[in-house]
Amino acid sequence: MKAEMIAVGTELLLGQIVNTNAQYLSQQLALLGVDVYYQTVVGDNADRLRHTIEVARSRSNVILFTGGLGPTMDDITKDVLAELLGSELYHDEDALTQMEKMFAGRGTPMVESNKRQALVIEGADVLPNRTGLAIGNAIVHEGVAYIVLPGPPREMKPMFAEQVIPWMKDNGLLDASTLYTRMLKFAGVGESSLEDALRDLIEAQGDTTIATYAKEGEVLVRLATKSDDAALAASKLGEVETEITNRLGQHLYAAEDVSMNEVLVNHLIQHQMTLSAAESCTGGLFAEMMTSVPGSSQVFLGGAVTYSNEMKERILGVPHELLEGESAPGAVSSEAAKAMVEGMQDIADTDFTVAITGVAGPGHSERKPVGLVYIAIGEKGKDTHVEELRLSGDRDTIRIRTVNAVMYRLWRKLQGHG
Amino acid sequence: MKAEMIAVGTELLLGQIVNTNAQYLSQQLALLGVDVYYQTVVGDNADRLRHTIEVARSRSNVILFTGGLGPTMDDITKDVLAELLGSELYHDEDALTQMEKMFAGRGTPMVESNKRQALVIEGADVLPNRTGLAIGNAIVHEGVAYIVLPGPPREMKPMFAEQVIPWMKDNGLLDASTLYTRMLKFAGVGESSLEDALRDLIEAQGDTTIATYAKEGEVLVRLATKSDDAALAASKLGEVETEITNRLGQHLYAAEDVSMNEVLVNHLIQHQMTLSAAESCTGGLFAEMMTSVPGSSQVFLGGAVTYSNEMKERILGVPHELLEGESAPGAVSSEAAKAMVEGMQDIADTDFTVAITGVAGPGHSERKPVGLVYIAIGEKGKDTHVEELRLSGDRDTIRIRTVNAVMYRLWRKLQGHG
Repeated sequence: MKAEMIAVGTELLLGQIVNTNAQYLSQQLALLGVDVYYQTVVGDNADRLRHTIEVARSRSNVILFTGGLGPTMDDITKDVLAELLGSELYHDEDALTQMEKMFAGRGTPMVESNKRQALVIEGADVLPNRTGLAIGNAIVHEGVAYIVLPGPPREMKPMFAEQVIPWMKDNGLLDASTLYTRMLKFAGVGESSLEDALRDLIEAQGDTTIATYAKEGEVLVRLATKSDDAALAASKLGEVETEITNRLGQHLYAAEDVSMNEVLVNHLIQHQMTLSAAESCTGGLFAEMMTSVPGSSQVFLGGAVTYSNEMKERILGVPHELLEGESAPGAVSSEAAKAMVEGMQDIADTDFTVAITGVAGPGHSERKPVGLVYIAIGEKGKDTHVEELRLSGDRDTIRIRTVNAVMYRLWRKLQGHG
Repeated sequence: MKAEMIAVGTELLLGQIVNTNAQYLSQQLALLGVDVYYQTVVGDNADRLRHTIEVARSRSNVILFTGGLGPTMDDITKDVLAELLGSELYHDEDALTQMEKMFAGRGTPMVESNKRQALVIEGADVLPNRTGLAIGNAIVHEGVAYIVLPGPPREMKPMFAEQVIPWMKDNGLLDASTLYTRMLKFAGVGESSLEDALRDLIEAQGDTTIATYAKEGEVLVRLATKSDDAALAASKLGEVETEITNRLGQHLYAAEDVSMNEVLVNHLIQHQMTLSAAESCTGGLFAEMMTSVPGSSQVFLGGAVTYSNEMKERILGVPHELLEGESAPGAVSSEAAKAMVEGMQDIADTDFTVAITGVAGPGHSERKPVGLVYIAIGEKGKDTHVEELRLSGDRDTIRIRTVNAVMYRLWRKLQGHG
């Protein structure tokens, strides 16, 4: 099966956005065992889009389109494709009804042009849009499959995962032998150290491949093996996973594609434990990460973003003499982090309490260097542990690295360590 | 001048990396007034690369290649191009000498395959690599310019800026006229409504083009005109901008590429005004957005993330009888939003105070529907205004849309409206 992708949008040709859709679809198709041979970007221009489709269908069996499904005159993907296939376009009634409901709910009027987002190519299957307006289309025509998806990633991704994959299976476009994969996620360790620890396994890899990817704050290890026997594949993957776990278990926080904040919130839910946070330099980022997980309201009771010293005193009751004065340790100090935990514990009475104070930059503060951060994790009835971090990077990077460090330490604590 | 880009690399087709080179080159070429009509990604495969080049040279005058210049057998860009042009490859002596020096300095041995990085296509100009090993090539052949650049952005970008631009000028590939652009950013309005309001201008556009792009929470309008006279271009763009401002000024929050949180924080800094926030369903996202802007510590004094009712009572002093009980309005109510503003005002004493309470989902709460959100903005010494929103989307989307709505309302307030 030869697949290629066509992204439609002048904003891509002008460099206003990056074609991250190509990356997502390429990764997904690789996992499904589909070879992707080309990715093309073309503007909102009918002649050039037509030319691009003609080239693509002469060399590929599956063509995935992203973008050009919006309501405006620029959005021409379905129009051009329909014309090339010699088909008409019609409006999908269900999509129209849903669209009308949505606009009524919002209290904004639906304009005529919105109806374009409900267009279907005659003979195509409709791919409903659960997270947006423009519906997708999928059609096989003269041996070539055309799959038309919206451009915004938050609409395209669920449509691909939930609808395109089953549609490709139904239409015999996916291999019988399947690629089985396992994702291992590590925190608190860098990619080179992790690779060093696994070097002999990576070098000796056979039909079970081991690939590592570094992301901010975590390293991913992807195990993969192709097989038509699910049990055999599982046993092969399990063997490698066990060996890796033996070596790096203290950093392995998940053996599936979940993120650290989800792991933490789900652990707390399961153990009926609660959490609160007092943040200074991260400005609410830790709270935001925790509360972005569905169900977090059961465990994350609340937080304080105490950016100024006054707020540290008023909300958290941090002593004034600790924050200001000639010989005071100051707001960026181990003492302040500890006092913030205690203040938050008094208010929230949660099982665990996190406090963060530091200098995210770009300017320094209290004549302390950018990147100096104190993180404290308190556990009810136990001593609070404070750690000093010296981080590098710009403001955003320091904030993210701080929150990643806090999450890793909290995870270790929940595992019964540290 | 019609240009297109070809990125060579199987790692792109597998989705292991994103093609950010395409974005950089597209932006640069747009600024230079060169139209980019296509971007293609192809793997490290000679047949498919040859096919891609044949398609490209049939339709474009300038082809920019990135990637495939490394030392390994996979790196075939120069080989395939040389073969297509009927030319030989030879080693550039300067590049070889420099490479040997570099390896000697590093103390690592230079292997035979490294020499491939010094290859030049007969007749091509050499583009030295200041930040890496593989040299670039540039050649005009039968009316088509081929520009071959390395894949790593930190090598490609300086090579483009320092050498490709002068080379293109020398070879008459750059217009005397320059593209002048202006970016207008709108909030609180959808793309279709905005386009409706500008339809006659868009339809009548001449040599000043008007393009709209929707992003989450904002719409971008890009004005562009080509000219060899900067003053004339500015006056043309200014004319269209004035007309657009007359129609949509209440939504136009920036005439440059800044985001709403930056606009808000910078406005508050400039006017020496302060801000605080009490958040429930957004869980700290508003605080996080504000504090991500450098300098925000001057204006954003702090916030409370009061996820549970108890925290709303303890930190903000929201009356218990307002939150719980048979006939209480509950935590998701206009009354609660107002009480949260008042509680936060008491603590922080800031010029402006924001409160947010609602149901982000996926589960409902207090038997109120997902997407029901109350946002309140308080101004010191004035009545607090509460607004009810009915938002659609998943949890993340509702949280982001809520914060976007709050930022827009706050911006309007800072403009002296609402």
